[in-house]
Amino acid sequence: MNEFELIERIFRTLQAESPSAGIEKAIGDDAAVMSLPAGARLVSCIDTLVQGRHFGADWSQVKELAFQIGYKAVAVNVSDIAAMGATPHSILLALALPERLANEPWLSDFAKGLFHACQQFGVTLIGGDTTRSDTLVLSVSAQGLLAADTKAIYRSGAQVGDKVYVSGTLGDAAYALKHTNNETGQQLAHRLHMPTPRIQLGAALTKTGANSMIDISDGLYQDLAHICQQSGVTMRIDIEKLPTSEPLLQADEAERLLCQLAGGDDYELAFTMPADIAPPFEHTTNTPVTCIGEVAATDSARPQPQLFYNGLAVTAAHPAPFSSLPSFTGYQHFIG
Amino acid sequence: MNEFELIERIFRTLQAESPSAGIEKAIGDDAAVMSLPAGARLVSCIDTLVQGRHFGADWSQVKELAFQIGYKAVAVNVSDIAAMGATPHSILLALALPERLANEPWLSDFAKGLFHACQQFGVTLIGGDTTRSDTLVLSVSAQGLLAADTKAIYRSGAQVGDKVYVSGTLGDAAYALKHTNNETGQQLAHRLHMPTPRIQLGAALTKTGANSMIDISDGLYQDLAHICQQSGVTMRIDIEKLPTSEPLLQADEAERLLCQLAGGDDYELAFTMPADIAPPFEHTTNTPVTCIGEVAATDSARPQPQLFYNGLAVTAAHPAPFSSLPSFTGYQHFIG
Repeated sequence: MNEFELIERIFRTLQAESPSAGIEKAIGDDAAVMSLPAGARLVSCIDTLVQGRHFGADWSQVKELAFQIGYKAVAVNVSDIAAMGATPHSILLALALPERLANEPWLSDFAKGLFHACQQFGVTLIGGDTTRSDTLVLSVSAQGLLAADTKAIYRSGAQVGDKVYVSGTLGDAAYALKHTNNETGQQLAHRLHMPTPRIQLGAALTKTGANSMIDISDGLYQDLAHICQQSGVTMRIDIEKLPTSEPLLQADEAERLLCQLAGGDDYELAFTMPADIAPPFEHTTNTPVTCIGEVAATDSARPQPQLFYNGLAVTAAHPAPFSSLPSFTGYQHFIG
Repeated sequence: MNEFELIERIFRTLQAESPSAGIEKAIGDDAAVMSLPAGARLVSCIDTLVQGRHFGADWSQVKELAFQIGYKAVAVNVSDIAAMGATPHSILLALALPERLANEPWLSDFAKGLFHACQQFGVTLIGGDTTRSDTLVLSVSAQGLLAADTKAIYRSGAQVGDKVYVSGTLGDAAYALKHTNNETGQQLAHRLHMPTPRIQLGAALTKTGANSMIDISDGLYQDLAHICQQSGVTMRIDIEKLPTSEPLLQADEAERLLCQLAGGDDYELAFTMPADIAPPFEHTTNTPVTCIGEVAATDSARPQPQLFYNGLAVTAAHPAPFSSLPSFTGYQHFIG
């Protein structure tokens, strides 16, 4: 059995356990064919994980993390669908596979992680492509649905006076990536390797009147800057309000704040809503939500977040970690 | 300007020239949002090009072929959509980009090739993702549409008595890949680098009653074997009927036949139709079509094509090139 047959066998076996409503043809032909519910609009994205960027280059780590890599490739794409307020529907996988991973144990663990994520998030694997490569590169394309009468939530809708919210806690993944050997890093490793896309919250926000939304994949500061740029506004962000997990409270404060502001891979949702609307309650979406600031003013010349720490504006003259932020250094993609 | 801003600027400029009917949100948010025509079914696929597999590993060649690489990444996916009988609609691009290609000249040429293909094939780039990588890896996911009353053409529908057809000519791309320095290879280079997906033919075949179809990306023999396996049939293929381009007639016959039977990257369509139905005329689809054999028998134990040369069955005992075929050697992915 060659590797292509091996992959086909592993995926077919796991596929049989997955649901597939409305899907006329999934894996095994030139393309997948599916019927969508009447009036549904299609939401599509693509996202890539590269060895040495989104997980270590080290082969022993790549082998150990097969399940998590499969899971995460799905989760990061589902997070993009959730950030539009849409319901995830299906995914396609492009697997550029190094020879040393083309074996039954690795592929089987990888596929188990991928299908575990599919089941968790209600998506069906409908197609894929395998090629040989020197490094592991995984691209997943995800498809979601929006009902005809549901407004998608874009980055461009933030309004002056909106409150700015984030889901969950921030900085966990970035800290875990840097500290694989200390206890706090190990406690947070699941946040790096198995992030939770906020599907229910994203969908609930289409009904409660959120004006803008993004998922935090490149770091809070940079992702809020995308909302500011596309909405032509500034934000006031109160750093002391950033939600912090119990383990991360043990970390050095300067490092913690840098992880929270500029670290990537959180896959939490950042969104803005009119001040007179309450965000969805935690018990309806199973997701904690924290207000961290507000949309301050219309500004097309310098549309970016402005950071405040205990009431004082943070500037480039401030010491680290603030002086290390992308707004002051121009350094993007701090991590990942 | 960093590379992410550079990519955004280049793509935005070219994007503005593209059509985008029904697309509510394309590039620039977490995902794209689009309305589909009432009743349309969605057809989706993903396909990857890897440096050193689908084009040379050599950096000078990768730099020279920027336009063609952009074009081909779109064309190979559009070909998969065409092979279902569907109409291409939109694409997403995942670009894993080496640092040495993250410059304006390369990205600009690449984007021009990509948008040229988009215009040729009537698709809109609706989203993408850029990551850093050591080798160039391009994944494109394509979406197509099928009207509610149009039957998709699968690999699994071949019926005993069907004639077997292929479009265009075979073997040109594989020959060009191996012979970059001889005249014939150079005459055929455009077939390797800028393949023509057979969109009109694919769509016409949904109306004329084709029973099965596949696009030839891995080589005629292997791709016909996919139809045989999924349909549970055998085929008789008459090798002397394989359509051959004028330049390829100049090549050594044994090598030519191997390119035609086992070479990849043709992106022609292979399909089967009842013997009493005439294939679409060339002047309606702008695509020549050649009958190369027939579906011979139902056979679930050994469902594969059987080759005949001037009326005699080809077996493993035959000399090269036939003894080199995947059916006899088990060697898949001869090229690419």
